[in-house]
Amino acid sequence: MRPLLESPLRVLSAGAALFADTLADQGVAVERIDWRPPAEGDAQLAGQLGRLWGQRIDAANQVALRRVLDAQQVLVDVRPAGEVIPGMQRDMVLHAGPPIEWERLSATVRAAAVGALMHEGLAADAESAERMASRGDVRFEPCHQHQTVGPMAGMTTYSMPVLIVENRTAGNRAYSILNEGLGRVLRYGGTGPDVLERLDWMRRVLGPALGEVVRSMSEGIDLRALIAQALHMGDECHNRNRAASALLIKSLAPGIAALDSLDAAERRRVLEFAAGNEHFFLNVGMAACKAAMDAARDVPNSSLVTVMARNGTEFGIQVSSLGNRWFTGPAQTPKGLYFAGHTAEDASPDMGDSAITETAGIGGFAMAAAPAIVQFVGGSPQDAIAYSRRMYEVTLGESEAYTLPMLNFRGTPTGIDARMVVQTGILPQINTGIASRRAGIGQIGAGLVNPPMQCFSEAVRALATAAE
Amino acid sequence: MRPLLESPLRVLSAGAALFADTLADQGVAVERIDWRPPAEGDAQLAGQLGRLWGQRIDAANQVALRRVLDAQQVLVDVRPAGEVIPGMQRDMVLHAGPPIEWERLSATVRAAAVGALMHEGLAADAESAERMASRGDVRFEPCHQHQTVGPMAGMTTYSMPVLIVENRTAGNRAYSILNEGLGRVLRYGGTGPDVLERLDWMRRVLGPALGEVVRSMSEGIDLRALIAQALHMGDECHNRNRAASALLIKSLAPGIAALDSLDAAERRRVLEFAAGNEHFFLNVGMAACKAAMDAARDVPNSSLVTVMARNGTEFGIQVSSLGNRWFTGPAQTPKGLYFAGHTAEDASPDMGDSAITETAGIGGFAMAAAPAIVQFVGGSPQDAIAYSRRMYEVTLGESEAYTLPMLNFRGTPTGIDARMVVQTGILPQINTGIASRRAGIGQIGAGLVNPPMQCFSEAVRALATAAE
Repeated sequence: MRPLLESPLRVLSAGAALFADTLADQGVAVERIDWRPPAEGDAQLAGQLGRLWGQRIDAANQVALRRVLDAQQVLVDVRPAGEVIPGMQRDMVLHAGPPIEWERLSATVRAAAVGALMHEGLAADAESAERMASRGDVRFEPCHQHQTVGPMAGMTTYSMPVLIVENRTAGNRAYSILNEGLGRVLRYGGTGPDVLERLDWMRRVLGPALGEVVRSMSEGIDLRALIAQALHMGDECHNRNRAASALLIKSLAPGIAALDSLDAAERRRVLEFAAGNEHFFLNVGMAACKAAMDAARDVPNSSLVTVMARNGTEFGIQVSSLGNRWFTGPAQTPKGLYFAGHTAEDASPDMGDSAITETAGIGGFAMAAAPAIVQFVGGSPQDAIAYSRRMYEVTLGESEAYTLPMLNFRGTPTGIDARMVVQTGILPQINTGIASRRAGIGQIGAGLVNPPMQCFSEAVRALATAAE
Repeated sequence: MRPLLESPLRVLSAGAALFADTLADQGVAVERIDWRPPAEGDAQLAGQLGRLWGQRIDAANQVALRRVLDAQQVLVDVRPAGEVIPGMQRDMVLHAGPPIEWERLSATVRAAAVGALMHEGLAADAESAERMASRGDVRFEPCHQHQTVGPMAGMTTYSMPVLIVENRTAGNRAYSILNEGLGRVLRYGGTGPDVLERLDWMRRVLGPALGEVVRSMSEGIDLRALIAQALHMGDECHNRNRAASALLIKSLAPGIAALDSLDAAERRRVLEFAAGNEHFFLNVGMAACKAAMDAARDVPNSSLVTVMARNGTEFGIQVSSLGNRWFTGPAQTPKGLYFAGHTAEDASPDMGDSAITETAGIGGFAMAAAPAIVQFVGGSPQDAIAYSRRMYEVTLGESEAYTLPMLNFRGTPTGIDARMVVQTGILPQINTGIASRRAGIGQIGAGLVNPPMQCFSEAVRALATAAE
């Protein structure tokens, strides 16, 4: 019970912590306001930022945001990458994040690339795969350059089955490989015969089966509706996909059960594989987010962020009006909880295209939908709500499809404005899996991470230059 | 922003609203405390209640509560009711709630009974079924008398397939029919050839298929774990079973897909039927709760409530130390939201054994897990949290399996103490579906309801008499 009378000396403290700390030490009630100078105190950047506020950019951002909000994403097919991904070639390997030279790739991502080359039959063993890659005999390109997204290492090769998500509003398509499951898997740099055997089965059996079933569904699978449901079921659809995966299986299971092309044992295996992986939906959701964000590309003057992606070494973003240009900075190492036997010492820097979920307003931006995720990434349910709340400070609008029950069904914060990030100093909040920094191990935990501010500062500078 | 200085005149007002209302009208800040005199001001009852506090009953309640908390419920089989339900007879129809004469049954429940008799082949048409029932040619008995629970009307006949849930800790079993889906269905008093055709298919195809699959799973399906997961996925497992149903389907789908006994079309139909019903899990969860509560029956001196159930006319409870004795009062009419074209005028009084979920500490007691349910039953997410919080006032403990993320993973309030209900005046909070009061219509909405206090007052009187 609160006292009936209070005689408060209370202080609001903005900015540097020293003043507040001193008062608090003396027993004074201090309410801290998280204020930082815009543009991190960089006067030149602040000046450039200052010139970016105004009707022209605001109007452009509303156009770009509207395209994101209006996206109607439908899973329409599963096909081999080489048949459908624009520009895909037999000797090409797509990877997550911004472009990067082989030499600068982490051991974890290199291990995944080696596995991908062996899976594709481009190399007979790990040694020759390494040699090919370092000689430049294989083309490494970012998934994002091909309307594609891949989680963690994101390795996508010619014969891998990919999900095809159509944005029915804008007509564009986006692609993603199938999720392999947890533990020692290619995308986390896992290696070994079991990894390659699984990928082979996915190519021979799983991909064709899913394709056949999805094609037989005249309306496809409405991913906008599915994600909206999952956010009311404790998922944020990046690091927690338990509900979305179950809903997806529920959609697919009747068709799988009726497949004539598979025998009973393979029908069972397909559904057991799907049911055994709580991130079965992750790649589907990522492709849905990519399909929404690609619709918002290339809006002149817009400062809306269309891509956030990491390659294990660098974090990169793209901004609507600046097309395919990347703004990069060093990938941070996530903070979180580790599986038994692993510690923060073992963690790889941030990797994967999965931050497309946050870019589209879910994932870390929708953590208020997923209080139970804190058991996986750390913190309290109240922290989860606070993360979502904070993201409204750097976003242009609110989703009309995805809502947060614990915020009275407010739409998720959607459409990061590069200007607002630099202005407020608030970095986008990303939920993520944590890979081992050593090759061959796989996932070792899950946690939270932010992009480096540098990506957004550089983007603001480029926007200012373009506006001159 | 709050003002830095407050000069409050604030009043705490307990009990009758008049005083608080008068102050509030004059602009005074009033904090209302929901206090009522124990035993609703009934001095004799208060005296009886007073004699029930003490170590003997407390210790007995801890024994009973421990049996509830320790229940390990597993779905082990699906079999025809007549083969497995103790005491089940060909000419017997089990119904929800406390015992009741045919003449006092509502039109809705009678319609369901007529359908059940026709389904079972005991009557050729509705007229002869009515005649049989009113002449007493058929035995109507409560499900609860046979270790069974049924939602809404709860009609259970000899050939209907029933879920078998085993409590691995205590060794007891509980039973429930399969969920028919939504809309015009038998349990809501729906009638018509489609209702009977569906029941026939469930008996011929669905039940045997589910039984075959569940029997093939060496460990069965761990319902304690499944419910725990679902509560972290926005379900409270009475009126919202979206996650639990999807998780159950995920468990069953691989087995269904591999069934040799069904052709492709029937395999598909089984999974489409399951996937098309967000309450597919409801009856499974009810049987799990019944299996937990039956383990806590007949603990001498215990005032723990083992049953809450309604027959559409009366609400009845049972109390551990008082065995099979029912304490009844008039069923209330739920308050909630109605489907288009229906209003509160059309609502049947409260019905069904589904309040076994609240009796076991989930359902309305776990509403804090299910903020999105308010879109279905009314109120705000904050109300949902408040309902759970309030139930700690009338329960003996907290679940060790089922936790509420939004209450920092506190265990759900578990084990209603009849004494505490009478002492505090706080009635158990039940989420429920709402049936039409007219025969043949089906479900018309969903909402919230309470038992009549009379059930608990009578139980307290009986406990006091037994303690003498």
